[in-house]
Amino acid sequence: MTRLLLISMICALILHDNYVAGEIIEKYRIYELKLEAASKGNPFRDVQIQATFQNNGDKVAVNGFYDGDGQFIVRFMPQTEGDWTYNTKSNIEALNNVKGSFKCISASAGNHGIVRVFNTFHFKHDDGTQFYPFGTTGYAWIHQPENIQEQTLETLKNSPFNKIRMCVFPKWYEFNRTEPQLYPYLGNAPDKWDFWKFNTAFFRHLEKRISQLNDIGVQCDLILFHPYDGGHWGFDRMSDEQDDFYIRYIIARLGAYSNIWWSLANEFDFMEEKQDEDWDRFLAILAEEDPYNHLRSIHNGVRWYDHTNPLITHLSIQEDPWEDGGVGEGPQKIDRWKNKYNKPVIIDEMKYEGDLKYSFGDLTAEEMTCRFWYTLTKGAYATHGETYMNDEEIIWWSKGGELTGGSVSRINFLRTIIEDAPPGGFAACLDMEEDGNTARAGESYYLVYFGARQPSGRIIKLSDDKRYTLELIDTWNMTITPLDAIYSGRCFVKLPGKPYMAIRAKVRLN
Amino acid sequence: MTRLLLISMICALILHDNYVAGEIIEKYRIYELKLEAASKGNPFRDVQIQATFQNNGDKVAVNGFYDGDGQFIVRFMPQTEGDWTYNTKSNIEALNNVKGSFKCISASAGNHGIVRVFNTFHFKHDDGTQFYPFGTTGYAWIHQPENIQEQTLETLKNSPFNKIRMCVFPKWYEFNRTEPQLYPYLGNAPDKWDFWKFNTAFFRHLEKRISQLNDIGVQCDLILFHPYDGGHWGFDRMSDEQDDFYIRYIIARLGAYSNIWWSLANEFDFMEEKQDEDWDRFLAILAEEDPYNHLRSIHNGVRWYDHTNPLITHLSIQEDPWEDGGVGEGPQKIDRWKNKYNKPVIIDEMKYEGDLKYSFGDLTAEEMTCRFWYTLTKGAYATHGETYMNDEEIIWWSKGGELTGGSVSRINFLRTIIEDAPPGGFAACLDMEEDGNTARAGESYYLVYFGARQPSGRIIKLSDDKRYTLELIDTWNMTITPLDAIYSGRCFVKLPGKPYMAIRAKVRLN
Repeated sequence: MTRLLLISMICALILHDNYVAGEIIEKYRIYELKLEAASKGNPFRDVQIQATFQNNGDKVAVNGFYDGDGQFIVRFMPQTEGDWTYNTKSNIEALNNVKGSFKCISASAGNHGIVRVFNTFHFKHDDGTQFYPFGTTGYAWIHQPENIQEQTLETLKNSPFNKIRMCVFPKWYEFNRTEPQLYPYLGNAPDKWDFWKFNTAFFRHLEKRISQLNDIGVQCDLILFHPYDGGHWGFDRMSDEQDDFYIRYIIARLGAYSNIWWSLANEFDFMEEKQDEDWDRFLAILAEEDPYNHLRSIHNGVRWYDHTNPLITHLSIQEDPWEDGGVGEGPQKIDRWKNKYNKPVIIDEMKYEGDLKYSFGDLTAEEMTCRFWYTLTKGAYATHGETYMNDEEIIWWSKGGELTGGSVSRINFLRTIIEDAPPGGFAACLDMEEDGNTARAGESYYLVYFGARQPSGRIIKLSDDKRYTLELIDTWNMTITPLDAIYSGRCFVKLPGKPYMAIRAKVRLN
Repeated sequence: MTRLLLISMICALILHDNYVAGEIIEKYRIYELKLEAASKGNPFRDVQIQATFQNNGDKVAVNGFYDGDGQFIVRFMPQTEGDWTYNTKSNIEALNNVKGSFKCISASAGNHGIVRVFNTFHFKHDDGTQFYPFGTTGYAWIHQPENIQEQTLETLKNSPFNKIRMCVFPKWYEFNRTEPQLYPYLGNAPDKWDFWKFNTAFFRHLEKRISQLNDIGVQCDLILFHPYDGGHWGFDRMSDEQDDFYIRYIIARLGAYSNIWWSLANEFDFMEEKQDEDWDRFLAILAEEDPYNHLRSIHNGVRWYDHTNPLITHLSIQEDPWEDGGVGEGPQKIDRWKNKYNKPVIIDEMKYEGDLKYSFGDLTAEEMTCRFWYTLTKGAYATHGETYMNDEEIIWWSKGGELTGGSVSRINFLRTIIEDAPPGGFAACLDMEEDGNTARAGESYYLVYFGARQPSGRIIKLSDDKRYTLELIDTWNMTITPLDAIYSGRCFVKLPGKPYMAIRAKVRLN
């Protein structure tokens, strides 16, 4: 039995008189319409298929895509419960006017829907669950040998990280000079590609990984372009038409995954073949053609993209405001960005914990942890990366594998503290006397971080009209110790004269 | 026998027919001419006495001062060997036309003369000995109880510090709310003073301490005004004429001490009673009337004095270029200051090691040490301060006493390394790839510092046409380990992946 025949038979089980019915889909999961059709020429390019899904007032048009072997797929993520019907349009008869229905039921535990901007500087899922990004970085993890990918998933599952920055295209860069097992295009490696024909095996693999990330609660911050190719494969220097063709294929294939964030590029300004107009255009395509309106951003090397562009949903920047130990220009920078852009700030690269010979990857665990605390107590978000060299050159930041650094458990500890806070997100308190790193969550909860300094005490400022109980948090040794006494207003707090301390103040209810 | 009669008898032993002769004085030590004269009115103000000292072509006019009890003193520091003669001028007969001579012999070991600017950014003594400032801070140490002052001297003697920032006037400030045993003016404490009559006991005490500092090789960076009075005594708000009168008295009394540096003020910009014109005038008086041309500077709080003023010999600033971990704006700031002012840069306050509740005094020992290394490897100089709280509130930075911090021994270690380098002073190397903190002393010696980062290796840049042997310096554990192999040009150096490492490269002679 040929593979094609087998697939045809499976399709026949659900296809009947061009009407597909009876499936039950959880909200925020994927309904997938698979159709088979013979076609001439290049079906990736020559065949268009779109389905319009309707449920009472809701009406969503979704583009399908060619998956090879005569298979066309339309993927749809329902965001309202109830009975959905659909109808297809296509420029080939076999795919036109296909109708069907399915039932969308409520989401089960852990299925929260797409992450959106919330409260100007923060995030929440479509179901209202607040999302605090604690991201990590594994640019090329899906391009590694299978066993390392499995190890990466297992590591992520047991880590505090709920977002990963990862590239569609493989990476050719120092410590990354191996060919991937799968390429995104058909052709001959390393540099003879048909940029009008996708390698569907590659994309099925990518989708599997995205889906597995979703299963373990990890957002996929998907990087569409990057400069770490340098012409080796040439994915960084396709024509404008090929770039756009790629982006539209990506939207059609991946848009229905609820855990997708669109990251136009990593270090976009290092891609000499692209102009600002290209990024503007990509952003416009994503904003217009992604029916779900996933988060969109673009990550810089040195020069920032114009983040006042309303199509940019949040900052996903490379910056190092914490070089200054948290009391100089750094905190003020974050305040300025928030004022200027009125968008959430994620510092997606603030250097990594590791021991590389490069200064982007030789932070101590203490410093990486410290930068997380500094950033979070400014009401912004931070992203982790780990760059310890080892004999196999399997460096987490690029290839995944195992995490060995000391900051991971401390970031986990921080995450439990942040998620325990009242909802709404943290706002920086700007009028502290000695430290810029005080955050407020509502009126009843403060978090004050003292960084690498070792004060024996500090004056902190709480609301005058409320009474608070305080806890001393040792952010490095991960202990929380209640302090005796009740505090209010501007008050002196005794501290142990050791670095990496924080104070948590909660309003006293009685 | 009255005290006055006793002093008169002693004076008679050396005074003879208005001609004093026969003393032998070491170069850079003080020749002191003491004369007695009855006078009406206020001798501090009403009597002028000046002596002109001559030795072959050298001719130096020196103002004397009233020391109370009918005693007038002219102090002179000879800077050339040989036979010196002098002649006085005064507006009262008894002090006029007093002649005498003394012999100046060569300086003994450890007696190097005044510190001057050398090689644009560095310092050396008058005898040519290079001086690398390793200063500390003890603003009000001479105003403490006698036993603490003695302890301070003993501590300094056993410390790496060869300069101390200290105030003439006592200090009224948090942790400093005690009255001194001696006041600089006659009158009634705390705020009824005759600003035209000095308390000579106070100044004799000050001189004793300056002289004792000289004996143990410590420069006295003498702060003439400061804002930590706030009107409590009112030494911060005398009239212009009283200020000038004070400065002239200081020059006459203290100018002959070879270890004096003039610091116009601490945090001058916090003294609201003074205008920039006042500081300009003080600087002009010092430059014009100090016959020895001691170093002159002025220390800022936030706003800098105009350091392009040619009468400012060196920067004595409060700045925090190392908040940024040594790789951000900080190093560039020092480069900019050097380019702009062409004067030595001493960062006299870059925050202190301690555990105060204020962020100016809660650095860890590691961070204080780190900032010293960062500063020195930029070809600039750093000043230490220690602010650990204790039950007695005897905080070194202000009162002296004992040093308990962890940076002291590491600064001592650094000093031995710096003083072991080829003469001429360090110049920052600006073209390093990953770290700004590489210094060169001549063509044959490099010092590369990696700060709080933990790289497992780095590329460093040595001269292409020379071959070097390298040593790994653990700046925290104070070890120096020779590395195998010979290095040249741009080369990779393996490092242990721990913070606080440095590399010393010395040219290979064979």
